[in-house]
Amino acid sequence: MKPVKVGICGLGTVGGGTFNVLKRNAEEISRRVGRQIEVVQVASRTMNPECDTSTTEVVDDVFAIVDNPEIEVVVELIGGDTLAKDIVLRAIENGKHVVTANKALIAVHGNEIFARARERGVMVGFEAAVAGGIPVIKAIREGLAGNRINWLTGIINGTGNFILSEMREKGRTFEDVLQEAQALGYAEADPTFDVEGIDAAHKLTILASIAFGIPLQFEKAYTEGIAELTTADVNYAEALGYRIKHLGMARRTDLGIELRVHPTLIPADRLLANVNGVMNAVMVNGDAVGSTLYYGAGAGMEPTASAVIADIIDVARFMASAPADQVPALAFQSGELSEHPILAIDQCESAYYLRIQAKDHPGVLAQVASIFSVRGINIQSIIQKEAEELDGSIPIILLTHRVEEQRINDAIIALEALDALQAAVVRIRVEQLG
Amino acid sequence: MKPVKVGICGLGTVGGGTFNVLKRNAEEISRRVGRQIEVVQVASRTMNPECDTSTTEVVDDVFAIVDNPEIEVVVELIGGDTLAKDIVLRAIENGKHVVTANKALIAVHGNEIFARARERGVMVGFEAAVAGGIPVIKAIREGLAGNRINWLTGIINGTGNFILSEMREKGRTFEDVLQEAQALGYAEADPTFDVEGIDAAHKLTILASIAFGIPLQFEKAYTEGIAELTTADVNYAEALGYRIKHLGMARRTDLGIELRVHPTLIPADRLLANVNGVMNAVMVNGDAVGSTLYYGAGAGMEPTASAVIADIIDVARFMASAPADQVPALAFQSGELSEHPILAIDQCESAYYLRIQAKDHPGVLAQVASIFSVRGINIQSIIQKEAEELDGSIPIILLTHRVEEQRINDAIIALEALDALQAAVVRIRVEQLG
Repeated sequence: MKPVKVGICGLGTVGGGTFNVLKRNAEEISRRVGRQIEVVQVASRTMNPECDTSTTEVVDDVFAIVDNPEIEVVVELIGGDTLAKDIVLRAIENGKHVVTANKALIAVHGNEIFARARERGVMVGFEAAVAGGIPVIKAIREGLAGNRINWLTGIINGTGNFILSEMREKGRTFEDVLQEAQALGYAEADPTFDVEGIDAAHKLTILASIAFGIPLQFEKAYTEGIAELTTADVNYAEALGYRIKHLGMARRTDLGIELRVHPTLIPADRLLANVNGVMNAVMVNGDAVGSTLYYGAGAGMEPTASAVIADIIDVARFMASAPADQVPALAFQSGELSEHPILAIDQCESAYYLRIQAKDHPGVLAQVASIFSVRGINIQSIIQKEAEELDGSIPIILLTHRVEEQRINDAIIALEALDALQAAVVRIRVEQLG
Repeated sequence: MKPVKVGICGLGTVGGGTFNVLKRNAEEISRRVGRQIEVVQVASRTMNPECDTSTTEVVDDVFAIVDNPEIEVVVELIGGDTLAKDIVLRAIENGKHVVTANKALIAVHGNEIFARARERGVMVGFEAAVAGGIPVIKAIREGLAGNRINWLTGIINGTGNFILSEMREKGRTFEDVLQEAQALGYAEADPTFDVEGIDAAHKLTILASIAFGIPLQFEKAYTEGIAELTTADVNYAEALGYRIKHLGMARRTDLGIELRVHPTLIPADRLLANVNGVMNAVMVNGDAVGSTLYYGAGAGMEPTASAVIADIIDVARFMASAPADQVPALAFQSGELSEHPILAIDQCESAYYLRIQAKDHPGVLAQVASIFSVRGINIQSIIQKEAEELDGSIPIILLTHRVEEQRINDAIIALEALDALQAAVVRIRVEQLG
């Protein structure tokens, strides 16, 4: 069979990795696919010293690739969402299939991009946009296609997980580990996207769409970062048998879809609690299959390239198919997306870890307990520690049963109005993932 | 689009699960696939009380389905490898696609079955044959298609893992837990397939083929069961920071392919070491992606049904494709399978845990150490315990570095010839999975 003609836009980390792996594994890949993946052109303004492009045409202008009539698949690996969007939309207009690793682009502009792709009868692959090399898009969209997905959750930002792992294992502070992560190149100079959960929310938005058959709704995702986490809470969680992970969580309920990124206590013996360092893992619960988990490198040159190439191969296999036979971009047929609403965070249900710093006065515990009981919030366990803070306050640590967040917000307002309260209540959500 | 017409042979655990999930999730599935999966006929001699077949044609004779001209996909869920083989081959002759959960059938007769399927231009899906609901065949065959796979390993027999988990967690003996597993229905009345590793070897054979592009060669898999494991070794492993798991392991080396099922010590902090009870997990290491892991229920009514239905959906999507565009059954094009040999177990390389029961005489440790050093076997760590056995022997526990198994065999012969030796040397392989 004829080679598949590919153009790669961007020769940075992921572009360079894709270029190199396609070259190194060319024989293995064509033994699998039955045809070659030929890189016809690469667009890059700077040379990647790890890539030998001596036998490949390198151009400055990405649009030379997008407009090249010979090219069948445009691989967008420049990142960002302005030029990248132009590249992808013009490639689609030109009747080319697209493969991208760009989570922000898909999460924010995916609905528009997929609509244009359908009109032009081309495919858009984005496996590499979520959890790097882990084939979790394929797992949900195809491997679990017989299921009604109940919920999914995951560690989908390696930088954040590295920071939390170091804080727990070595008792280090958030700021200290962040600086190291930046020095190691795990975290960007501006770490906002990672530590504030925006990157994770992009990925969660994509996962939720393909799991539940809803349009991409990034703007409705609730996002809470890890910058406020203290080693005190990391340690209290540990003492309670939990670990704190920065999770993306999407859950289908009768009222709507929960779509939220935040630090979360999970039992220490869960596999997800044992995913450390920069690794990623996604847990998916389906009505037939139960809970499944997918683990691997969530970023990096070659792991991400692995996902990009898998998408190129999928495109090669499906490009001659009738559009109706192709796997829909968002897993469900475009006319079959559901209007089930995304819930606001205060409508979501979770259990809660609360740390209340109060004066060591008789009766405080009774006041606290009363605040919960009148609101129908059940306490699962409570620990009152010896006085240990400089201000003479004692921490009261509570774990609640599952309850709608609105009621917890209401309880926190009442708690913070108590005279005995010394500081704002620390609230971290808890999931059993049972 | 027209419905896909399916016939299900067998309405036992997996057949019943498939029937029920297809019915329950009919709407969700057709929202995904864009067409309905219609169960035209079911063959079963006995009724499954969990299935409502009131609106479905049920026949006694599986060949009524196989020969039904209306049926496009024959789902073989009766198990065994005699009648099942006849069903599958006749369905293929009749030009029908096949989906099966039958690992023994695929591992032993797969080469023949896939050859016939190619001649007739039909597909044979077998995702459900390995690790139940976990989409690991799809992950390797498609999700990691850009990689050269280096090795894979997994917990692919839930019964064996349940027994080992209970032995470790509760200090119970193998026989004790096996009886409970049989009472719970996890283990068959004849547990040989599970505890001797034959079931795991069937699955490993399939995984190795799709990972390395080699023909199915079940007869060359090395298989060692868990019946000989003692709580003493489980506890020593624990003290050394390891856990014992019954792993299938396939590794590509320059000399050939290692294909082996046996108890294995793995570091206690690895995710695989924390896969407990009847759950399954498979770790796959590719040259680009690094190590990935896939976890979930390895058996059971609906988890296995989840995989069967995913295969039916894949068939539905690819049935109009040119055969060259379909995913090859063994991941690689049929003309591209490699002749790379399967290695005999004594050519395989591993690290080793050895327990040597010796008389508590001066000089024994020196004799033991000498046996290893003259054979160039490096000792990683050694523990000599206080005398504790009734016979007055003391256990010497050794961990070696990686070495070809032949040299360990030779060392064991020399050890067992020592006058001080009180019992056969216990040998368990060790993998770091780093």
